[in-house]
Amino acid sequence: MRRKEFAVEDSQEIEEFLREMSFGFLGTVGPDGWSRVTPLNFAYDGQYFYFHGSLAGEKMKHLKHDPRVSFTLAKEYALIPSYFTDPKLACPASAYFKSVMVRGTVEHIHSPEEKAAALTLFMEKLQPEGGYDPIRADDPQYAGHLKAVSVFKIVPADMSAKFKFGQNMKEADFSDVVSGLEERDREMDRETIALMQRFCPRHNGTFGENI
Amino acid sequence: MRRKEFAVEDSQEIEEFLREMSFGFLGTVGPDGWSRVTPLNFAYDGQYFYFHGSLAGEKMKHLKHDPRVSFTLAKEYALIPSYFTDPKLACPASAYFKSVMVRGTVEHIHSPEEKAAALTLFMEKLQPEGGYDPIRADDPQYAGHLKAVSVFKIVPADMSAKFKFGQNMKEADFSDVVSGLEERDREMDRETIALMQRFCPRHNGTFGENI
Repeated sequence: MRRKEFAVEDSQEIEEFLREMSFGFLGTVGPDGWSRVTPLNFAYDGQYFYFHGSLAGEKMKHLKHDPRVSFTLAKEYALIPSYFTDPKLACPASAYFKSVMVRGTVEHIHSPEEKAAALTLFMEKLQPEGGYDPIRADDPQYAGHLKAVSVFKIVPADMSAKFKFGQNMKEADFSDVVSGLEERDREMDRETIALMQRFCPRHNGTFGENI
Repeated sequence: MRRKEFAVEDSQEIEEFLREMSFGFLGTVGPDGWSRVTPLNFAYDGQYFYFHGSLAGEKMKHLKHDPRVSFTLAKEYALIPSYFTDPKLACPASAYFKSVMVRGTVEHIHSPEEKAAALTLFMEKLQPEGGYDPIRADDPQYAGHLKAVSVFKIVPADMSAKFKFGQNMKEADFSDVVSGLEERDREMDRETIALMQRFCPRHNGTFGENI
């Protein structure tokens, strides 16, 4: 992480973000050395990332070639127009976002019990309201489906998070962005202000107001 | 594209999606053979994708090692719960989305004029309301900034799009999903129904109602 001021080390913050996100982007490398970025729904159990798919297709060819993957999630909260802080230059235009990058190794899950457990995690995340019979390997109505579906887990080797909410700004610019967002008041602007206040060390009460 | 029923060939549909999206995910490969997926704001001029960044950091190391990249954009419209079409099994749970995958080669833009043109595209996309002095290489207030910023373009070798909106479903299931979305009526559910009707060949008037 080059810009250390945006790095987030708080694992609870990161896990909350991972729980909230329904999909991420899997990076794989093919035999020709070319990368592929595949959007995927996923589930995370605090240790591994799970996804499912078919054994056909390019993504599988890549995973067979090299199980080392990257997996990145990002959510954009606000585009920050330059005029919030500068009436003339375009340069301060920016975007505030949360992102998490994972590097790890993909393992193919074969046992019906493990598949059922992973798909249960998946359903609990993406369909928390329920409305289906529990996925169990010994339930005959699921047996054929469990055999047919391919389930994978990413075993993370490292994970880093970057939450960019103006942590690098001068006090005056920070206030201008807050005022600009308050006035604009688009869908996520209030939430963005709250995140600016939460993540900017000079503004979350730790250092007081005058720096 | 393995599942041909989801492939979109209409370049106008694809361009509209690319104009709407503010960021995508760049796939690169490092000297150790490991991929990296970097979220990036971008602009697209109908031919090239542009992004900017710093010369420091891992992404640049990757681009110097191998300029071949992938670039993927995706937007999730709706999680489709299994119970819309099946009262018992979890299997029909799905997600409807648009995605575009690009493979291409990254070129580093060096001339201040080209940089200014690319950053202008960028601003027109992300700050369409204006509010800044035009970015021109001969404007002294921009000269230093243009020198400092690194600007890149992706020259696409191929591009494919997948818009998944239930095109593979039986008529009865399709109707059930439409009814389910109408009743649920979350933020993007009406838009999702419109896209289902637009992209499903059996449901957009071409084939009539009874199949």
